[in-house]
Amino acid sequence: MNIIARNLQPEIPAYTPLGNECALFETAWTRQLPLLLKGPTGCGKTRFVSHMSETLGLPLTTVSCHDDLAAADLTGRFLLKGGETVWVDGPLTRAVREGGVCYLDEVVEARKDVAVVLHPLTDDRRILPLERTGEELEAPPSFMLVVSYNPGYQSLLKALKPSTRQRFVAIEFDFLPKAREIEVVSAESGLPAASVEPLVEFARRLRALKGHDLEEGVSTRLLVYCASLIDAGLPPRDAVRAAMIEPLTDEPDVRAALLELAQAVIR
Amino acid sequence: MNIIARNLQPEIPAYTPLGNECALFETAWTRQLPLLLKGPTGCGKTRFVSHMSETLGLPLTTVSCHDDLAAADLTGRFLLKGGETVWVDGPLTRAVREGGVCYLDEVVEARKDVAVVLHPLTDDRRILPLERTGEELEAPPSFMLVVSYNPGYQSLLKALKPSTRQRFVAIEFDFLPKAREIEVVSAESGLPAASVEPLVEFARRLRALKGHDLEEGVSTRLLVYCASLIDAGLPPRDAVRAAMIEPLTDEPDVRAALLELAQAVIR
Amino acid sequence: MNIIARNLQPEIPAYTPLGNECALFETAWTRQLPLLLKGPTGCGKTRFVSHMSETLGLPLTTVSCHDDLAAADLTGRFLLKGGETVWVDGPLTRAVREGGVCYLDEVVEARKDVAVVLHPLTDDRRILPLERTGEELEAPPSFMLVVSYNPGYQSLLKALKPSTRQRFVAIEFDFLPKAREIEVVSAESGLPAASVEPLVEFARRLRALKGHDLEEGVSTRLLVYCASLIDAGLPPRDAVRAAMIEPLTDEPDVRAALLELAQAVIR
Amino acid sequence: MNIIARNLQPEIPAYTPLGNECALFETAWTRQLPLLLKGPTGCGKTRFVSHMSETLGLPLTTVSCHDDLAAADLTGRFLLKGGETVWVDGPLTRAVREGGVCYLDEVVEARKDVAVVLHPLTDDRRILPLERTGEELEAPPSFMLVVSYNPGYQSLLKALKPSTRQRFVAIEFDFLPKAREIEVVSAESGLPAASVEPLVEFARRLRALKGHDLEEGVSTRLLVYCASLIDAGLPPRDAVRAAMIEPLTDEPDVRAALLELAQAVIR
Amino acid sequence: MNIIARNLQPEIPAYTPLGNECALFETAWTRQLPLLLKGPTGCGKTRFVSHMSETLGLPLTTVSCHDDLAAADLTGRFLLKGGETVWVDGPLTRAVREGGVCYLDEVVEARKDVAVVLHPLTDDRRILPLERTGEELEAPPSFMLVVSYNPGYQSLLKALKPSTRQRFVAIEFDFLPKAREIEVVSAESGLPAASVEPLVEFARRLRALKGHDLEEGVSTRLLVYCASLIDAGLPPRDAVRAAMIEPLTDEPDVRAALLELAQAVIR
Amino acid sequence: MNIIARNLQPEIPAYTPLGNECALFETAWTRQLPLLLKGPTGCGKTRFVSHMSETLGLPLTTVSCHDDLAAADLTGRFLLKGGETVWVDGPLTRAVREGGVCYLDEVVEARKDVAVVLHPLTDDRRILPLERTGEELEAPPSFMLVVSYNPGYQSLLKALKPSTRQRFVAIEFDFLPKAREIEVVSAESGLPAASVEPLVEFARRLRALKGHDLEEGVSTRLLVYCASLIDAGLPPRDAVRAAMIEPLTDEPDVRAALLELAQAVIR
Repeated sequence: MNIIARNLQPEIPAYTPLGNECALFETAWTRQLPLLLKGPTGCGKTRFVSHMSETLGLPLTTVSCHDDLAAADLTGRFLLKGGETVWVDGPLTRAVREGGVCYLDEVVEARKDVAVVLHPLTDDRRILPLERTGEELEAPPSFMLVVSYNPGYQSLLKALKPSTRQRFVAIEFDFLPKAREIEVVSAESGLPAASVEPLVEFARRLRALKGHDLEEGVSTRLLVYCASLIDAGLPPRDAVRAAMIEPLTDEPDVRAALLELAQAVIR
Repeated sequence: MNIIARNLQPEIPAYTPLGNECALFETAWTRQLPLLLKGPTGCGKTRFVSHMSETLGLPLTTVSCHDDLAAADLTGRFLLKGGETVWVDGPLTRAVREGGVCYLDEVVEARKDVAVVLHPLTDDRRILPLERTGEELEAPPSFMLVVSYNPGYQSLLKALKPSTRQRFVAIEFDFLPKAREIEVVSAESGLPAASVEPLVEFARRLRALKGHDLEEGVSTRLLVYCASLIDAGLPPRDAVRAAMIEPLTDEPDVRAALLELAQAVIR
Repeated sequence: MNIIARNLQPEIPAYTPLGNECALFETAWTRQLPLLLKGPTGCGKTRFVSHMSETLGLPLTTVSCHDDLAAADLTGRFLLKGGETVWVDGPLTRAVREGGVCYLDEVVEARKDVAVVLHPLTDDRRILPLERTGEELEAPPSFMLVVSYNPGYQSLLKALKPSTRQRFVAIEFDFLPKAREIEVVSAESGLPAASVEPLVEFARRLRALKGHDLEEGVSTRLLVYCASLIDAGLPPRDAVRAAMIEPLTDEPDVRAALLELAQAVIR
Repeated sequence: MNIIARNLQPEIPAYTPLGNECALFETAWTRQLPLLLKGPTGCGKTRFVSHMSETLGLPLTTVSCHDDLAAADLTGRFLLKGGETVWVDGPLTRAVREGGVCYLDEVVEARKDVAVVLHPLTDDRRILPLERTGEELEAPPSFMLVVSYNPGYQSLLKALKPSTRQRFVAIEFDFLPKAREIEVVSAESGLPAASVEPLVEFARRLRALKGHDLEEGVSTRLLVYCASLIDAGLPPRDAVRAAMIEPLTDEPDVRAALLELAQAVIR
Repeated sequence: MNIIARNLQPEIPAYTPLGNECALFETAWTRQLPLLLKGPTGCGKTRFVSHMSETLGLPLTTVSCHDDLAAADLTGRFLLKGGETVWVDGPLTRAVREGGVCYLDEVVEARKDVAVVLHPLTDDRRILPLERTGEELEAPPSFMLVVSYNPGYQSLLKALKPSTRQRFVAIEFDFLPKAREIEVVSAESGLPAASVEPLVEFARRLRALKGHDLEEGVSTRLLVYCASLIDAGLPPRDAVRAAMIEPLTDEPDVRAALLELAQAVIR
Repeated sequence: MNIIARNLQPEIPAYTPLGNECALFETAWTRQLPLLLKGPTGCGKTRFVSHMSETLGLPLTTVSCHDDLAAADLTGRFLLKGGETVWVDGPLTRAVREGGVCYLDEVVEARKDVAVVLHPLTDDRRILPLERTGEELEAPPSFMLVVSYNPGYQSLLKALKPSTRQRFVAIEFDFLPKAREIEVVSAESGLPAASVEPLVEFARRLRALKGHDLEEGVSTRLLVYCASLIDAGLPPRDAVRAAMIEPLTDEPDVRAALLELAQAVIR
């Protein structure tokens, strides 16, 4: 059940599996179980969901959650049209109707009433109650709910309640191993692997500093940015500073230390 | 008055009674008393209510409560239709009108004004005042209000007021005894009882850690997920990690300890 | 002026007076003074107001106050009907217009702007200003405002301001004496007085624990529930646990102690 | 300029002046200066404003301020009528238009934006800007703004800003001297002065306890309530408890001490 | 460029300049720079802006800022008229359109989104973007933005951000010197200078107490009130208490000390 | 790729590059990467964005962010027109449609839901989902998102989340070197460079005090104001006080020290 993540059509996003995550996603989908993805910023969770949705031939709806996202933003609202209030489906409702994947990115950020629509969708009933219209949608077998969050941000106020967490099969994500990350960054940026290698090496050193001087390690996305700027002709040190150091810290001392570290590694 | 919870029609959810809870539910319904269910996540409270409603032949309305659930979400609202404001019943009002069971899951999460509609429904008047329309519905004898909450989450801000609690007959729920839980998980997942046994044993060890390293013990629902993934062909250790360890904790140390514990018990 | 609270018509709720409260209510009504009832949960304040309203032949409007109850919820609002905004009276306004009793239960829970409509109604002006319509209703002599609260819940944030409190004649309520409570519970539940006696004895012991292990003593309402379950055939110990212990506490230690106490007293 | 506060017509509320407050009110009105009344609950501030308004032949508009009172509640709002938004004057705007007294009771309770409409009304411009309509009303010479508050409640969050306070001439109020208070209570309740005297004596002792055991001394209003209940036939001790002790405190110890004190003074 | 602040027409408010503030205002206006006025309550900032606007022949729009003043209150809103939403300009938009002075009094009180409309108006673009309509107004050369605040109130929550402050030329105001203040108070109240002198002397002593016993010194406005009451026939000590002591403090000790101080100075 | 920031047409704002920032902006635009500008108040970030937009021939939309700026303020809203709700694009949506630069100034101030519209725009999808209309706009290659903030203000509550930061290439800005700043100030104010030099020298001394006595160093904008006032005829010391000292501090001690420092440097 190993799925080769080679991008044949330009529409299917490339994804390099690290472990059993593709099999787990597919099994969860087959068994109609909801899925929770945990992991740091920019390690490829969103990409993984896009890849799996395309591979399984399912339409994908992505919602970035935030402090003010309420249940009605997911299910739908009444709008005034021609003097009538007309119901307009929200993204979750549309995903349930069409039987695709609904991906709620950083779900812990959302308002608490979101749990109301997730709970009946994530137990054996698999229904989406639309209380405002009185409708109760039954999710088709092909519908799958996927949520993600970054455990590094979890706070007392923003943790998932156990009664919500315990409704999901969960996968922990981490950054790619070195050789794979070089491949990915080179493919996305166009910069040859040999020039990408010191950038990845530098990123790995920065990630080791997480929790000490840095709140979060550098993401694969920033590595792609950096390689892309170099490929466009910027001097590597300028690119590393702009794409791998300035986005990570505002502390003058930390920045100076990182610049020194960069000089040792780059060129 | 012992009710055999054997599921003859596929619509009636199976339920395995542990004590006198079925008799208590039926007596409370006969005497028109409201019921409060207390217990941990995923121990079967929702299933119990579904089972009893079907057994007594009553329609069931379930509302998952949350931080922003207000009285009007239960009773109803005026909506604009064709230039007129039209009253639309909420789920509690519909349940009162049709004389069924209304189940408010995790009622402590709801906003405080919910008490307004619950109080007159839970004393000898058994009325639901709809202040916006001026109506006052009398609940028919067959109507029953059931609420639940998880005492493990109770905080100072989120406790039920004594003036609300003291309006309910209450039942404490806990996890199933070992043999019963093996039966249930095997029946729900399709995995043979012999393969389910080590999973349940592992779950019972995890539950003993509650309050020390884990906020909440593993639910029967996650056990069903895990058995279901194994039944679909995933290696048991992968399934245990995805369905019984990752959903419980984000702490690297705790996760490592649980993985080690799992290796001792599984396979 | 002693009023016999024997319930001749089924509509008049029975009430057993303990002291001078019936005379005080009637005098306050005659002299057009507003009344404040203080006392613990389930000691009969609501029943007392129903009883007196019926006895005096006055229509009764009851409003359970809560965190989000605002002045407009009491006075009324403009609603959109047929393209026009139409004024709809709130429950307090209706009570003033019809000259009945308006009972605001747990008034300290309401929002602070409620004081605006209560102040001019509770001084010698006895008017209800409806600022949104520009109307100023004069309360007829038969109108009476009654409010209640439970001093046990009073907190710094939720206390009545002296400028509001000092507008009311006040009565302190407490639980019934033993013999009276046995009579009431037996009459309401149908269980013979001899079987009710140990339940009341147990309740009195629980009330003595208030402030130590229990936030609030057991109410007469729960006693009626318990007797009602026993009358319907449940074993007394099951009924006591479900109606008199589980509704009071979630603490395992406290519950165990109460169960032990119950075993000594019941049967 | 001493104004005899004898009530000839039943509509003019009686008022017994204590010092120069009547002259001050009239001079401030003549000189078009706004007035601030400070003093404890129920000492007669509202009565004083009614009396002076009647004496000067001015219509009086009273607004009880509260936590949610906003500028628009004073100035006015647009309402939807027949498909059009129609402006409806608020109470302050009506008072300015008709050139009467506008009395904002407990002004510190109101929301901060109320200062916006008070500032231009209380400097030499004497204008009321209605920003929503673009109108700017000039207050006629007969218009007077009076505000009050109880310094006993002042907290850091609820103090008047100096930039607002320094726009008012201010008068400090206190309770009436003994002989005057007996006269007033007797006149309002119908109870002979000889029976009122021990009640006033008891009230004066309670007021001396303010700040020690009582948050606020007993008001003249409660004295009138108490005398009124006695005049209607209630035993004095019952009346004193219901009208002068229960409204003041919920503390069992304090109540017991006050009851003992009452027994020494009453009868 | 010294401007004589003699009031020829009754419409031009008198103003007595203390330093270079008139020249600074005029130069800032000529150079199209926004102006920030700092200073205590009632020292004449509002009067100064009125005076300069009249002197330069510019229409003046004044807005008293407060906790709930939002950007839309300054720029404008859509209102419903005849079934259409119609845009209605706010005071700042009107001032920009007519090219006059817009004065935001106590600007730190306003909500943070006010900065959005102030920033593009206070850099070299001098534009007012109306995002709701999509319009972008260019301020004519004669438009000037003036804001004020009282540094004495500045708190951590209510300070101007440096990114806003550094967009203004700023002037510090203080109270008038003694001789000038006597002139002003006498002219405004009608009381002869000889009778005003001890009042001003007393005010200067009170101002020296600022920060010790008094939150803020007495304003020139209150001096005018006091002189006005005396001119109308009130005894000076009554006038001083009502206009210069009661508005400053509620502390009995401080009031007693100030009354004693007044007796030494007045009469 | 060095871009000479000489202003040939009056519409193109002059900009003096300090390092590689112009090349970085252009490369980021070519590679379709979003850009983050960090730096103190008034150091030229806004000017830089205007300059680059003009140079690249792109329309520029600027939004000053604030506490209440929500996603809908950027994307658009439904407005009521002729009885219909009509969608009106917000500034970000307009910028995406026309393929220009959208600059969000002080983006950390905005509400958290803004991240929802920024995330899909700043990864490889480059889409703007308009959930209310169900539309999903693909950004054309010429569209560029630029955001800025001042690291000096960063607080725990107002920091950019790493998951947002790591989506941007970042540039750190600082004040101009002395000779360049003299040129700029002289050009903008009209004052000869010789007279500007001591002002810049004084500004540099003030900036060295940042973090000790001053919250923020003086901006180039205030230097231009000061030079402009001097050029209009104000005495230099008056201009320095009004434009470079009063806007920086309200502390009497700090102001006195700065005035003394000014006297040593100016004239």
